[in-house]
Amino acid sequence: MTNKLQQLAQNILTSQGKIEADFILRNAQIADVFTLTWKKADIVVNNGQIVALDTMNRCKAKKEEDAAGKYVVPGLIDGHIHIESSMLTPAEFSRVLIPHGITTVLTDPHEIANVAGAEGIQFMLEDAKKAEMDIFVMLPSSVPGTHFENAGATLTAADLEPFLKHEDVRGLAEVMDFPAVLNGEAGMLEKIMLSQQANLVVDGHCAGLNSHQITGYRAAGIHTDHECVTAQEAADRVEQGMYVLIREGSAAKNLRDLLPAVNATNARRFGFCTDDKYVDELMDEGSINFDVAMAIEEGMEPLQAIQLATVNTAECYRLYDRGVLAPGYKADFVLIESIDNMRAKAVWKNGVKVAENGAMLTNRTEPNVPAHIHRSVHLPQVTKDMLSIPFQKGTKANVMEIIPNQLITNHLVIDVPVKDGVFVPSVEQDLLKLAVIERHHNLHTAGLGIVKGFGLQKGAVATTVAHDSHNALVVGANDEDMLLALSRIQEIQGGFVIVADGEILAEMPLTIGGLMTDVPADEAKKQLASLHNALHKLNPTLDFHFLLTFSFVALPVIPALKLTDTGLFDVTTFQHIPVEAEV
Amino acid sequence: MTNKLQQLAQNILTSQGKIEADFILRNAQIADVFTLTWKKADIVVNNGQIVALDTMNRCKAKKEEDAAGKYVVPGLIDGHIHIESSMLTPAEFSRVLIPHGITTVLTDPHEIANVAGAEGIQFMLEDAKKAEMDIFVMLPSSVPGTHFENAGATLTAADLEPFLKHEDVRGLAEVMDFPAVLNGEAGMLEKIMLSQQANLVVDGHCAGLNSHQITGYRAAGIHTDHECVTAQEAADRVEQGMYVLIREGSAAKNLRDLLPAVNATNARRFGFCTDDKYVDELMDEGSINFDVAMAIEEGMEPLQAIQLATVNTAECYRLYDRGVLAPGYKADFVLIESIDNMRAKAVWKNGVKVAENGAMLTNRTEPNVPAHIHRSVHLPQVTKDMLSIPFQKGTKANVMEIIPNQLITNHLVIDVPVKDGVFVPSVEQDLLKLAVIERHHNLHTAGLGIVKGFGLQKGAVATTVAHDSHNALVVGANDEDMLLALSRIQEIQGGFVIVADGEILAEMPLTIGGLMTDVPADEAKKQLASLHNALHKLNPTLDFHFLLTFSFVALPVIPALKLTDTGLFDVTTFQHIPVEAEV
Repeated sequence: MTNKLQQLAQNILTSQGKIEADFILRNAQIADVFTLTWKKADIVVNNGQIVALDTMNRCKAKKEEDAAGKYVVPGLIDGHIHIESSMLTPAEFSRVLIPHGITTVLTDPHEIANVAGAEGIQFMLEDAKKAEMDIFVMLPSSVPGTHFENAGATLTAADLEPFLKHEDVRGLAEVMDFPAVLNGEAGMLEKIMLSQQANLVVDGHCAGLNSHQITGYRAAGIHTDHECVTAQEAADRVEQGMYVLIREGSAAKNLRDLLPAVNATNARRFGFCTDDKYVDELMDEGSINFDVAMAIEEGMEPLQAIQLATVNTAECYRLYDRGVLAPGYKADFVLIESIDNMRAKAVWKNGVKVAENGAMLTNRTEPNVPAHIHRSVHLPQVTKDMLSIPFQKGTKANVMEIIPNQLITNHLVIDVPVKDGVFVPSVEQDLLKLAVIERHHNLHTAGLGIVKGFGLQKGAVATTVAHDSHNALVVGANDEDMLLALSRIQEIQGGFVIVADGEILAEMPLTIGGLMTDVPADEAKKQLASLHNALHKLNPTLDFHFLLTFSFVALPVIPALKLTDTGLFDVTTFQHIPVEAEV
Repeated sequence: MTNKLQQLAQNILTSQGKIEADFILRNAQIADVFTLTWKKADIVVNNGQIVALDTMNRCKAKKEEDAAGKYVVPGLIDGHIHIESSMLTPAEFSRVLIPHGITTVLTDPHEIANVAGAEGIQFMLEDAKKAEMDIFVMLPSSVPGTHFENAGATLTAADLEPFLKHEDVRGLAEVMDFPAVLNGEAGMLEKIMLSQQANLVVDGHCAGLNSHQITGYRAAGIHTDHECVTAQEAADRVEQGMYVLIREGSAAKNLRDLLPAVNATNARRFGFCTDDKYVDELMDEGSINFDVAMAIEEGMEPLQAIQLATVNTAECYRLYDRGVLAPGYKADFVLIESIDNMRAKAVWKNGVKVAENGAMLTNRTEPNVPAHIHRSVHLPQVTKDMLSIPFQKGTKANVMEIIPNQLITNHLVIDVPVKDGVFVPSVEQDLLKLAVIERHHNLHTAGLGIVKGFGLQKGAVATTVAHDSHNALVVGANDEDMLLALSRIQEIQGGFVIVADGEILAEMPLTIGGLMTDVPADEAKKQLASLHNALHKLNPTLDFHFLLTFSFVALPVIPALKLTDTGLFDVTTFQHIPVEAEV
């Protein structure tokens, strides 16, 4: 008998009480996600599988534990996340989320792919292998995000194809270039077709698409959307054959708005996802456990919420081996304190207890990062001249006004301070200088702009977390601090740097592609806290998530005015425009 | 652009109304199986796919038709059937069922495989390719059924493995050898494991298994059951992670008993199936359409019943491309007269109308049958001596008593007429002679028995439809007619023969493996009617389905007493016993 055949035989004999199981969790109140009822039984585990829900005390095991009547739910599944947004590596991300009861995620390595291309995806797949969590990859469909900026890499269908055979790849991630899809452009459709031919799933990114456009996405066979913001949108997508992943992350928070779309009949087509969430919030709240608790708080039947977070998402991604507490399924389950808070007391992955009382029971391993990815920041020697914004005719400027905690911005046309024919930042008018400098291939491209709303009273803030191209992004009240911040970003190989009066107040190195840290999560959380404190020194009245809002000012697919390394970009007309406005 | 890429692009552009579609069915009342609502729209079809449900008159097509507000449902799916039981080839079966709205079936070629092994499966796969219907094959898991008989072939895991790569094979069929499964026997588990490693489904056959045994089946990863006879059994199987296929066929009729197990929450885990149904009933009633109508008549919400018959069964067998009327899905749909009777007015397969008002719109093609399968009956020259049942001690006999329309029999121990030391049939006491003679490999094995309940007043009935080994089976009131019936079976190469007073009253040749006819279905139906008429001449008071009941007296896995070519078989003790009883 082969080893696998032996295991299968052992599992059957164990289920019949004929041989000892590996493990039994006794006296559990088990969530039945098919009947939406709780039932009392002993969970019998062998070779990483549930082999029986024993109510007759038929089975014995080498190792037993007593759930003392507490609730047990299937391991939770995050349907769509970008692990890079946590600023942690996949393995470290797993160590943060497993203690909250998340045992499977589908991640889109879109950020690292924009920096390091296929090598970035490969790194994520390899690091994920070290994780206790099952981390499946959806291949980035849009690298680069647009052709109005210089990203670190370009990924064609041919570049993605080899990954489609990888056992941990489940499909193509958030197809966002809707004009390409709806116009039937070959480059885009090729990626979709290859995934479908590999019998994999194609995720959509349908922000703001109307019902007619969704029809086009469905005609293309696009399977999910996680960008719904209204219940009406969600209901329409389900009716047209999509799965809807209800999103609740650091930036976008849609759960409360979408819940009304879910009912007993269509619930099977809904799941939960996080999309983007920072390390500190992940550590404090978790992710899908938090969504389930919120849904329950909003009045959803607890087992219905648990069903969304488990079997529904599993079925959406054709992961038939999980999401259910029944014999024949993976032994991924979570002992919870109370249904209301969904707080995990202990977590089992493949039948092994891996976390307890919020902490992992296994040891951390250091990430193994390829040299290219560890040294990904290639900034030129930036000079004052490179940061100067000339005005020929007058003082009218196209100004970007940020909206706290949102990805969209306003496009203002106002007078700005100009001296000797160049723009001079003004803290009084809250008109600061913004720059995006290409940092991947030493192209020396630099985009300059004027931004309102960050409210810095002094200093500068720089980062390489600048969606989606992740060039060097800096905002400041004066050029000197901006230059210092940029040179420090180069020294630490990316991350966040906060500078004032010629001094570095705080920094968070993200040496893995300028996006992820290689320090442990709690250390990263401390660094993040120090950034928040420093920001309050620069803006004493700060009352929004500065770094989050800041990281999206370079994303040229979200209205109205953005800045890339090739210049100021008007998203509504989809073209570059000068800083100096026409009079 | 490749052809597929072009089609994908065309479908998208068509969905957006930018180019003409292949076909539009206007003004349809469409069954939405996700929300369980009816909605009015035009169904827009291109390249065999639904590309839009148009409510704004956006799309135009080369060909249009008006549904005039009638109901349209997805093509119906039969989750488990043995096409051989219809006595038709797959292509002819398709011509009978498509007009009833069945567009996809999963068939287990268990019968032909018992006759012709891998070659039989290959024939079914090839003939299925000629069908308008999508016919998927589940590979027979138990050939031969037992080792207490001689079948035509033996299929090991190694024999099945090559078929697992065939695009029309969806998995392993009804695993029925539960002792082999629950004892973890390698031969059985190997078949299961190979199917699972190919990411295919394994069907169960859990007749009478208790909850504990079902746990063992689930530990083996067995995915479905279609043998439930009580709502309690069905509910338990769903809770343990199985799909339940509610069966309503010619022999087993479980629908009314199982419906109470289905509710809004667990419905997603239920589908419908037929298992075994004769050509005449299939022509008169159809199959799954009949089940849906019956479920509605029993009080199930019509759209709920339609959901079971479509998307649920599709998901069970991981056929994601069908079972739903929404863009991106296969254009398989049925225009129905009224929800109550589910009568199909017209049927579209891959967007092409293939049937209307109960008739196919395409032409029949002749089956292409390999010589082995066309000449599969190899009977010896049977003599009177071979049919003699000697009695040494007395007149007490182990007698099989049939139960009309049931597969199970009673085991009687009674006195029988004996003359000159051999049994003499008695029509007065309704004690007839029964024989099973090996007909595959000229082994000259013959099993003899005494049967009560068929009520023949004269003559004999012979057939090669004798589950599961399909040897030659004959029952008679005298040896001469039995011998004539057998020799005629040999001449016509299998089927049914009815004889009385040295004359052949009626016959139905089944020259394809002794199981299927190569004449058109309506012709076969006439032959079947002639058999029924002739049977009434032999048994004027006949009030049960003689042929159905008869065909199962040789199936040694169903209690209590059966007859195989190797002798009388006591199913309760699972051993052969003599005809003459111990005194």
